[in-house]
Amino acid sequence: MAIITLTTDFGQKDPSTGAVKGAILSELESATIVDISHQISPFHITEAAYIIKNAYNSFPKGTIHIIGVDSEITPENKHIALELDGHYFICANNGIMSLIASEIKPEKVVEINIHDAVETNFPVLDIFVKVACHIARGGTLEVIGKTIPQIKQLKEFEPFVNQEQNQLVGHVMYIDNYGNVVTNISRKLFEAIGKGRKFNISARSVNFSKIFESYSDAINFSIPKEKREEEGKKLAIFNASDYIELAIYKSNPRTVGSAATLFGLKLMDSVTIKFT
Amino acid sequence: MAIITLTTDFGQKDPSTGAVKGAILSELESATIVDISHQISPFHITEAAYIIKNAYNSFPKGTIHIIGVDSEITPENKHIALELDGHYFICANNGIMSLIASEIKPEKVVEINIHDAVETNFPVLDIFVKVACHIARGGTLEVIGKTIPQIKQLKEFEPFVNQEQNQLVGHVMYIDNYGNVVTNISRKLFEAIGKGRKFNISARSVNFSKIFESYSDAINFSIPKEKREEEGKKLAIFNASDYIELAIYKSNPRTVGSAATLFGLKLMDSVTIKFT
Amino acid sequence: MAIITLTTDFGQKDPSTGAVKGAILSELESATIVDISHQISPFHITEAAYIIKNAYNSFPKGTIHIIGVDSEITPENKHIALELDGHYFICANNGIMSLIASEIKPEKVVEINIHDAVETNFPVLDIFVKVACHIARGGTLEVIGKTIPQIKQLKEFEPFVNQEQNQLVGHVMYIDNYGNVVTNISRKLFEAIGKGRKFNISARSVNFSKIFESYSDAINFSIPKEKREEEGKKLAIFNASDYIELAIYKSNPRTVGSAATLFGLKLMDSVTIKFT
Repeated sequence: MAIITLTTDFGQKDPSTGAVKGAILSELESATIVDISHQISPFHITEAAYIIKNAYNSFPKGTIHIIGVDSEITPENKHIALELDGHYFICANNGIMSLIASEIKPEKVVEINIHDAVETNFPVLDIFVKVACHIARGGTLEVIGKTIPQIKQLKEFEPFVNQEQNQLVGHVMYIDNYGNVVTNISRKLFEAIGKGRKFNISARSVNFSKIFESYSDAINFSIPKEKREEEGKKLAIFNASDYIELAIYKSNPRTVGSAATLFGLKLMDSVTIKFT
Repeated sequence: MAIITLTTDFGQKDPSTGAVKGAILSELESATIVDISHQISPFHITEAAYIIKNAYNSFPKGTIHIIGVDSEITPENKHIALELDGHYFICANNGIMSLIASEIKPEKVVEINIHDAVETNFPVLDIFVKVACHIARGGTLEVIGKTIPQIKQLKEFEPFVNQEQNQLVGHVMYIDNYGNVVTNISRKLFEAIGKGRKFNISARSVNFSKIFESYSDAINFSIPKEKREEEGKKLAIFNASDYIELAIYKSNPRTVGSAATLFGLKLMDSVTIKFT
Repeated sequence: MAIITLTTDFGQKDPSTGAVKGAILSELESATIVDISHQISPFHITEAAYIIKNAYNSFPKGTIHIIGVDSEITPENKHIALELDGHYFICANNGIMSLIASEIKPEKVVEINIHDAVETNFPVLDIFVKVACHIARGGTLEVIGKTIPQIKQLKEFEPFVNQEQNQLVGHVMYIDNYGNVVTNISRKLFEAIGKGRKFNISARSVNFSKIFESYSDAINFSIPKEKREEEGKKLAIFNASDYIELAIYKSNPRTVGSAATLFGLKLMDSVTIKFT
């Protein structure tokens, strides 16, 4: 039974998502279709990459991931299908896969060449679904494309480490549903540079000198509930994807505010860690 | 294996959608349930019709489509089930099916008459699910309703063609997730009236003299990326459903603005094409 | 074939929901996963309880419901799994189950104790999915937890009845997708106290002396459509869940306004019924 996931910027109102699901079921009645997200900001491939990177590997090997973000074919952005980490991905070669595959080399990449046979101005529906169902039926990538040596590289915004190795400057990579601020500083990098030293994290006017393992780690449960200051407490944690996240305990962006609004942080704002 | 789609104005927070899915699975454990959209504007049957019309026929023949928009039974709006284009639709007879079926005649229409056996103030849950599962199990429409000669007609807003056949006035039918403006002028009508003549499309203060086949057709890729003006470029295209659409290249309604906001266009605003 | 539902405050953009679905399919390829809602207001357990309570029992007995709202494990909120009304629920013991189970006693409750074997800061993904798949495969609760005598009780805001039994004060429990205002006064309570007497419902400046059985019950269809005042009509009904709801006929919160905005009512505002 094939699993096909969808990550798009189609939203959840337009007919596009329904049409794509219908097309998959028309070709492959037994497919299991899973929405990763249709709420990607329009054409925002770094956002889409972050979301896919942190969701895809929970799925079983062999899952086929369709990416419908900035997917129109152009002379610069051909369509590709590839195998990576035991999963299949179908998307435009617009650089998104270099972000998803930043630490893993694709096993095989083909440039899709079935376009002559298909007239379309909705490639996710007409091209990507066909390719996905071909793979789901056990077809090889070579049948629907020609092997290319590599995918388009998009330079990721890597955290900057100074020469003295006592300062690390990253940036805000994502703001989540709770308004918490995810940086692009991984636990791995933090530990490699910090080597157990004391540190100060600063972003605009907030500062943190401790990184918790979970939100509730920041709360002292030995103090009675009425006395401890819990709601609205600011904290830094390693999040579920092991990136440093600046958060508000039990924040609600629609009522009391969130880390993003309270700290005044936006996407791409810098976050600095000094080790002493 | 039956496929049942849902198009409603229930939103994605209320318990309604979950309850309907649970009721389907209680009757028919193996049903494949697909959301077309739950984001229809409340009671907006023309919007719902546009979305269903452009999604349903990607699904395999035999798919059952439940429409939960303005679905309360009243003396004026009875419940109907019908077969159209090899698909089944279950909805209130409020005119929505005349919009979906504007070019295709239903093969069979019944007025649902199982209400005596079911007390309800949530007909999608109590009536439509029962009818859908009946059809999915291979039951005939005659068992759950009595044949009626025709469905309620709702006059569609057709584009107006002047007597000299050199002017076409349509209107804005839908604004999509990218803020692009879909008109009700089809390629077919445009070509039938235009007969290859030059033309000018005007809507408020914007004008277009060319209609592209896709968004990227409007971009000259022989110019280096840095020099060509790409982001924010305004263009007219035939969209995936073959209607004329006024768009902004790679627009994002939440950041740089969209066709709708930049052109100042709203639903039902007129769009005029003059042929010369 | 197991059915697993998800109710969370993850929203529909973050990678969390996709990751959870992937993890379920990795363990149990044939699972049917149904979203009840991912739009719960962050950490809002009474809202989540309302939604689950009004959706779960449409599902077949044996369905497994994962609740990802305020689900971090703390010294105060352990993780639990329980059987209730023939359904299974997996959540934090933060009081939410006492709201869902207010009228039904759980058949069995265990405190989940598989945490030693699993390191996590995303318990829905790492703990709840494991427990759900264990139950789906026919495993008993005792294998993944130790029986506890009862769940944490959260005092529900019960409507207040005065000593003379001629006044009932409830409050606004939920505002739905149409902006209609759902109170916590059930038909059962209303009838038990009212005993058929005349009554007046007041909330801020609106008053009602009749409760309809459905929205269209409030409309007099013997008057021609043009003459009757239909759109925007205010009414009280017993809603699909048999609670008193204050509504606007065919309201649209995004255009003409809704009961909540027009009546100026917010969550927890009081609604008073006087019997005479």
